[in-house]
Amino acid sequence: MYQQNGWNDTIVAPATAQGVSAISVIRLSGSLAFLIMDRLFPAKKISGQNTHTLHVGFLKDGDRVIDEVVVSVFRSPRSYTGEDMAEISCHGSPYIVQQILDACINHGARIAKPGEFTQRAFLNGKLDLTQAEAVADLIASNSAASHKTALNAIRGGFSKKLKELREDMIRFSALNELELDFSQEDIEFADRKQFYSLISELRQTVDQLLSSFKIGNAIRNGVSVAIIGKPNAGKSTLLNTLLNEDRAIVSDIPGTTRDTIEEVINIDGILFRLIDTAGIRKHTSDVIEAAGVERSLEKMKKADLVLFLFDVSDAKDEIARLISELQKEQLNFLPVANKIDQVGELSARKNFSDIEKVIFVSAKAQLHTDILRERMVDAVVEGKLQVEDTVITNARHYHALKQVQQSLSDIRKGLDEKVPGDLLASDIRRCLYYLGEITGQVTNEEQLDYIFSKFCIGK
Amino acid sequence: MYQQNGWNDTIVAPATAQGVSAISVIRLSGSLAFLIMDRLFPAKKISGQNTHTLHVGFLKDGDRVIDEVVVSVFRSPRSYTGEDMAEISCHGSPYIVQQILDACINHGARIAKPGEFTQRAFLNGKLDLTQAEAVADLIASNSAASHKTALNAIRGGFSKKLKELREDMIRFSALNELELDFSQEDIEFADRKQFYSLISELRQTVDQLLSSFKIGNAIRNGVSVAIIGKPNAGKSTLLNTLLNEDRAIVSDIPGTTRDTIEEVINIDGILFRLIDTAGIRKHTSDVIEAAGVERSLEKMKKADLVLFLFDVSDAKDEIARLISELQKEQLNFLPVANKIDQVGELSARKNFSDIEKVIFVSAKAQLHTDILRERMVDAVVEGKLQVEDTVITNARHYHALKQVQQSLSDIRKGLDEKVPGDLLASDIRRCLYYLGEITGQVTNEEQLDYIFSKFCIGK
Repeated sequence: MYQQNGWNDTIVAPATAQGVSAISVIRLSGSLAFLIMDRLFPAKKISGQNTHTLHVGFLKDGDRVIDEVVVSVFRSPRSYTGEDMAEISCHGSPYIVQQILDACINHGARIAKPGEFTQRAFLNGKLDLTQAEAVADLIASNSAASHKTALNAIRGGFSKKLKELREDMIRFSALNELELDFSQEDIEFADRKQFYSLISELRQTVDQLLSSFKIGNAIRNGVSVAIIGKPNAGKSTLLNTLLNEDRAIVSDIPGTTRDTIEEVINIDGILFRLIDTAGIRKHTSDVIEAAGVERSLEKMKKADLVLFLFDVSDAKDEIARLISELQKEQLNFLPVANKIDQVGELSARKNFSDIEKVIFVSAKAQLHTDILRERMVDAVVEGKLQVEDTVITNARHYHALKQVQQSLSDIRKGLDEKVPGDLLASDIRRCLYYLGEITGQVTNEEQLDYIFSKFCIGK
Repeated sequence: MYQQNGWNDTIVAPATAQGVSAISVIRLSGSLAFLIMDRLFPAKKISGQNTHTLHVGFLKDGDRVIDEVVVSVFRSPRSYTGEDMAEISCHGSPYIVQQILDACINHGARIAKPGEFTQRAFLNGKLDLTQAEAVADLIASNSAASHKTALNAIRGGFSKKLKELREDMIRFSALNELELDFSQEDIEFADRKQFYSLISELRQTVDQLLSSFKIGNAIRNGVSVAIIGKPNAGKSTLLNTLLNEDRAIVSDIPGTTRDTIEEVINIDGILFRLIDTAGIRKHTSDVIEAAGVERSLEKMKKADLVLFLFDVSDAKDEIARLISELQKEQLNFLPVANKIDQVGELSARKNFSDIEKVIFVSAKAQLHTDILRERMVDAVVEGKLQVEDTVITNARHYHALKQVQQSLSDIRKGLDEKVPGDLLASDIRRCLYYLGEITGQVTNEEQLDYIFSKFCIGK
């Protein structure tokens, strides 16, 4: 067991959501866990019970009965934290939960910090850092895709890849260090050709992981979408059509700011957050006005994706002009021609044949809205929706990989310029450091505290 | 196992409060519970596992992994419901909970109705009805006293008393029925004197239980308190003094209407709800005005207890007049003379010596506020704060006991008037019926559905 700065003291916390409910669960982990249970749960001597067993009885603080509970016993190392652990399942009353927490504290436990159970699991080698971080993602997962990437990460798919990369780098580094030892003899243990190919292989994988961050981020945090267009374009009808078919339940999506984000739809497991829908519903704030797009540009720039909706009956030249303005601003937008039911699809297509990639729909008649949805997904993931084990969803990993990418460039440059081995060694160490930081093979306490502080209490 | 109208089909429900949290627990109970787990949890054959064991592994729906979970196995009859039961402890994501519920439903379970697990426990004889009802009370308990009465009730203290009463009545009934069989021979098997003494004993116990309802109700639902008095009386200071010493955490107290009830204090385990404290804080709505109490009478009548606060420097005659008005309205009130620090306690006592039971305090100097708190408790429980096993907290029990009381009167009257045994038998049966209804020895389905519909989902 990892023991440092009192790490292995005994911690306790409620593990289930707060509120009146059928049951609540309290977690207790550490070297005193079973001794505390022996005092609180005299019905059965928990310290003498087998691991992975359940025990029913009254939980008492002295003579006072607190509740009839079920105690789960997980013996070290076969527990979530790797330490001795008890889980107390009591009646779901916040009052009772507080009484039990107090009783555990009275007998020597202390309240756990957020994420402290998972932090111990990491420190005891039950999980690596990406797996530990994925636990928080899994809890926050709210769509098929975010759930799948988090679960893949927990199962180690993502960190396995990174650890392989790092081992390659260590091999590379060892040969280089060997050369340094024999530097006076001018021997090259490390074949420079192999070095080049190893670096380009690494570089390719890192690039791939980095580029997956865009998908990963969309999967993890959802994609903000602004529907813009003139008052007559049919934005409200389109919004309702999309909502009718794909509305997601948003009550539990973390970070949903009710002020600005009104509706969320789920297409192929990706959450699209339709921003400023209040404006659309009220028909008051029309983002593109006759005067041009300038005034509402800021609003659009906040969106990951802009749906520019226009009426197929609108003047072609004006639409072309507005689209070129959107292009100038480098917005990620889809031009959507609405109301094809009124003029017919063919004549609509003919009218706008000069403009590239227009999606022709009728929001009212629900024509081709399936194509629109496909194109929305494509606009985010560029056809790479296949959720693989190697999708990066975490900004911390992204920034560390950026450092890896930079150090790989520097190594490459160093090789090209035939810099001395000791200069190369410093770049290699930087590369190893950042790779190790992601999986937790290289850690510092402050960083760990920061990572785990973002967890739920009791996890 | 109780089987009727598909009772023993397999039910599933989330058992923990909703929300993003470390873990969530899902309950599955019924004859298919383990077979469903065998399909969803291929890592271990749950149907072949011992009762009261824990199993860690991946929960899958077909090939799709939903989560890494811990499964608790409770074999019939050693489970909460008495049926085969599995509890699935998963990561606390509402998305994952929904996926697991869906998977259980796909494999033959159905969503449980509120309280259906406890209803099955009752139907399978694991709990009697008062115990089952106490489960809901225990979950809702929010103070030491409400917690203790609910726990006593779960442990059977309350229903044991009622069952004893009922057995006495059955003995009584049997002797009477015997007389009916031999009615032509004019034999009295049942000694009329013993009858009388049995009835008066029963009556005494029922009266005692009924009178405990006032305490029980105060314990269960809290006591609403109105602080009234003229603007200069120091209501706001008193409120703050009480709150500083005894403020209760109210966020999870069911039924707390934030509109009217602002603050809750906990004195000796009883919750006092200070109503209309907003008015006190604002110094705007003073309940007793110079004109008299009439205008705000309605407000005061809503309170279980009224604290009538006045300044010891106020004219004695006016205070005496206001108190007599409160008495006329039959309000449960305590006269509280404030600001004794300004005139001295002795002279204050002398001035108001004509008025009974005045409590002399200084809210500002916190003099004698401990006496005020004691008297507040006394005013509710009339000195009987001892929480005994026989406290009635449930309105359903109260009304059934009222019927028992009435039928006992009728039996007594019948005996006095020497009515025929068959008329007496009908009153005895009524008495037995209502006693049995409380403990669930007499039930009807509609009533059961109503009782359990008020439970949490998953309980």
